[in-house]
Amino acid sequence: MTRVRLAIAYNGAGFRGLAPNAGVRTVIGELTPVLEAILGPISEIHMSGRTDAGVHARHQVLSFDTDTTIDATRLAKSINSRLGPEVIATSVDVAPGSFHARFSAIGRRYRYTVLNHPHPSPFSAGFEWWVPGPLDLEAMQAACAPVVGEHDFASFCRRPKPNDDGQLISLVRRVDSAAWSEDTDDSGQRRLRFEIAGAAFCHQMVRSITGLHVAVGQGRRSPADVADVLAARDRNAAPSPAPPQGLMLWDVMY
Amino acid sequence: MTRVRLAIAYNGAGFRGLAPNAGVRTVIGELTPVLEAILGPISEIHMSGRTDAGVHARHQVLSFDTDTTIDATRLAKSINSRLGPEVIATSVDVAPGSFHARFSAIGRRYRYTVLNHPHPSPFSAGFEWWVPGPLDLEAMQAACAPVVGEHDFASFCRRPKPNDDGQLISLVRRVDSAAWSEDTDDSGQRRLRFEIAGAAFCHQMVRSITGLHVAVGQGRRSPADVADVLAARDRNAAPSPAPPQGLMLWDVMY
Repeated sequence: MTRVRLAIAYNGAGFRGLAPNAGVRTVIGELTPVLEAILGPISEIHMSGRTDAGVHARHQVLSFDTDTTIDATRLAKSINSRLGPEVIATSVDVAPGSFHARFSAIGRRYRYTVLNHPHPSPFSAGFEWWVPGPLDLEAMQAACAPVVGEHDFASFCRRPKPNDDGQLISLVRRVDSAAWSEDTDDSGQRRLRFEIAGAAFCHQMVRSITGLHVAVGQGRRSPADVADVLAARDRNAAPSPAPPQGLMLWDVMY
Repeated sequence: MTRVRLAIAYNGAGFRGLAPNAGVRTVIGELTPVLEAILGPISEIHMSGRTDAGVHARHQVLSFDTDTTIDATRLAKSINSRLGPEVIATSVDVAPGSFHARFSAIGRRYRYTVLNHPHPSPFSAGFEWWVPGPLDLEAMQAACAPVVGEHDFASFCRRPKPNDDGQLISLVRRVDSAAWSEDTDDSGQRRLRFEIAGAAFCHQMVRSITGLHVAVGQGRRSPADVADVLAARDRNAAPSPAPPQGLMLWDVMY
């Protein structure tokens, strides 16, 4: 038996997320028959973390087992010729039997992109949130500090179903870094980028924090509100999550 | 009567080019009913230059006449709300009656992007030509000098139909500058960019020159071949044109 570590990049626009989900098109749903056509039956595919419908990944890591000897180069080429450029295998490795895409990961890094310009871009609309009005970058930067550290992120997370024992699942997470930066391209388009890294994130957490930070940038909230929203531990305390297409799983650390 | 100068950006992927063409979806074909819904009947729309199916424009300029008083801000907003983000009005101005989008233009600048990486990108595949093998940038740069200046570009242009008098249309054009540059992004992807500017270009000229330059980068042709291909004035002397999605009309100068 061989444990395979497969890193992929994908454009999330055409998928209802990463995880298999009967009746809808998902990344793993498309990938599984391609892998099985090459390798024969494989085990369940584990993933570093789910991504929602429309969310992209530059570096997503999957693991699974196969009884077939793998030729990494050929496997990557087969995936890319059948699913590329929408889904691309960026690396294929044989991993130790102890490797698990989700449980072995020690950190995740996400990037969210906001286009702050009078009109949207025909070339990057699928990868950013278009916010035409003024955005105060300094205020958004000031809104980062409160989310760094270990907190109960219930105000920013979709409430999970209780587990089989009826217990509520903890929404305490540790954020290691969070920062907004900006750049202006050679067409004069200003983009604000949010980079956030932490051990793990709950469902919609990055998009919800981004939504609040953009509200701060628009002057609808103040940087000081962020600590209050966090302390409320109430989903209704935060504004709507930022739209999915601006979000990209940037990296997974092991 | 008011002459309107309308600058647009568009993602060419969903269009069979810019110019109206019965029975197929084109940029001006989609734009015309939107303009007429706002302004009533308008004159024929002139354009700085055609772009082929699948080719993009960052800055394309159109001109037309209307008898309606225009509100530039409202007109741009209406276009963008109906056709954006695929087609975006980047500026709307009242122009002097002597202004003509095509005949007043004194220069055009194009950019062609090549992704030189082992696998394609899920995020920019619609805007570049993926060339996985090694590309010799120095050789491609050396292949630029021969195309600069005034030449008969028959080897690089689709042969036009004779005009109404049965005369062949001249394919002599003047290229003011041509250069390849490279950059590597934060995902380690190397992109080579070709920038070419000149008074005017004939049909498929930029894509044909790009195709030859990439063949030089691959070692299939030598930089010295470029002058020979040009001198041949024969379409068969040049390799196939580069694919359309890597090409963008970058700017039009007046």
